[in-house]
Amino acid sequence: MSTDPRLFLPHALQSGTPVILDREDTHYLINVMRRTQGDTVRLFNGRDGEWRAQIAEASKRAARLELVEHTREQAQVPDVELLFAPIKRAKTDLIIEKATELGARAIRPVTTQRTQSDRINVERFRIIAKEAAEQTERLDLPEISDLAKLDRVIDGWDEDRILIFCDEAGDDGARPWGGERGRAVAALGQFADLTNRPASILIGPEGGFSAAERDRLRGLEFTRPVSLGPRILRAETAAIAALTLWQSACGDWR
Amino acid sequence: MSTDPRLFLPHALQSGTPVILDREDTHYLINVMRRTQGDTVRLFNGRDGEWRAQIAEASKRAARLELVEHTREQAQVPDVELLFAPIKRAKTDLIIEKATELGARAIRPVTTQRTQSDRINVERFRIIAKEAAEQTERLDLPEISDLAKLDRVIDGWDEDRILIFCDEAGDDGARPWGGERGRAVAALGQFADLTNRPASILIGPEGGFSAAERDRLRGLEFTRPVSLGPRILRAETAAIAALTLWQSACGDWR
Repeated sequence: MSTDPRLFLPHALQSGTPVILDREDTHYLINVMRRTQGDTVRLFNGRDGEWRAQIAEASKRAARLELVEHTREQAQVPDVELLFAPIKRAKTDLIIEKATELGARAIRPVTTQRTQSDRINVERFRIIAKEAAEQTERLDLPEISDLAKLDRVIDGWDEDRILIFCDEAGDDGARPWGGERGRAVAALGQFADLTNRPASILIGPEGGFSAAERDRLRGLEFTRPVSLGPRILRAETAAIAALTLWQSACGDWR
Repeated sequence: MSTDPRLFLPHALQSGTPVILDREDTHYLINVMRRTQGDTVRLFNGRDGEWRAQIAEASKRAARLELVEHTREQAQVPDVELLFAPIKRAKTDLIIEKATELGARAIRPVTTQRTQSDRINVERFRIIAKEAAEQTERLDLPEISDLAKLDRVIDGWDEDRILIFCDEAGDDGARPWGGERGRAVAALGQFADLTNRPASILIGPEGGFSAAERDRLRGLEFTRPVSLGPRILRAETAAIAALTLWQSACGDWR
């Protein structure tokens, strides 16, 4: 395993064109990661693949990197999005980090009738996603949307895209499945027929979807309610589990 | 969805025998959850199923509960264990919480050659697991072991038990799988043949297993190396993803 630090940058990456790091990335590379002139790093920008670069010159405020080798061609993660209702800050941050690690192409916060938080900081989310993408070896960052109302998102839905909704806790008193289930929901691991079809995974708020929301979701052509087992999962666990199962059944873990 | 608080207790739960809560559980029920005389709660102890109980009497220091109804028979989660190398405290705590939610029957911290932490607080782990079990509706708590050396754990291995090891990052520079893989590891989602066979999932430390550890693990009859996709996952993400896939392919999410 290479131990070269890995940085996402907005710069174009092309042979012969040096990269000048800004103050923040310079601080990270020189002070935090303790790299010096001559050391190598890996760079990506979401467009030009991954490059190995060498630190040609570094001060406290800036560093100049020379591109050495084009190590990976640009690639995109599979087309799966995560829609989720923001919860407490630390758990929402965890969802952003883990969705990035698990290869979500886009992350869309939505408000539902029982959403506990209607303020989010998209810029903080983007920083979390950038750091997670650097660590997880992805070549792109997830697109992160502003908060939108679930009803409006569904009004404008592209019907080619499957909406997988994880119906964890709700009004009807039934456990999602297992011995006491009252509803015909499938296990997400069985969804191999969704392979190659764009998908969005919707995770509800901690209080579950309301009856009206659930009725609407269940009545739509493009939705599939799924189960995540007999235990009640917290929202962040449900998000991680659902993305894992989708990647395994339909995505790039196959 | 019932909103009755759910408590794990050491007490025997049997019809006609009242339960006297200690000071800590009384504080939780009366002050934190704001319940009063006449309100109902759910109780479980890992042996006698789940009971609905009513608060018959409460003071600041103690509460007496009367059992009203036996609501669920005792059941155990499937026989899957999580073996993991402790990492930073917050992430280790997350692993304990999520392994409990995802139905691990036992949680066994192990030290490997690259383990970053050789001190753990098993009592804190048990408190985290108790709270997660209360929230997630399981009827038992995971067994949590003291820290042990991986080599010794393997020396005493019961060969009927499959050891699934998640070979995320390592010395040989290969990504676990995907376009650049150099090794024949299977995707955990394909392991339906392990159904009904006791299993342990082993997650390595952040620096991966050493070459010596990996050689030993790969040479044993009862091990299976598995892949968790083309991106590099952090240890806590790998633990959550592997338990999810096992439950989906072999456990009680089928």
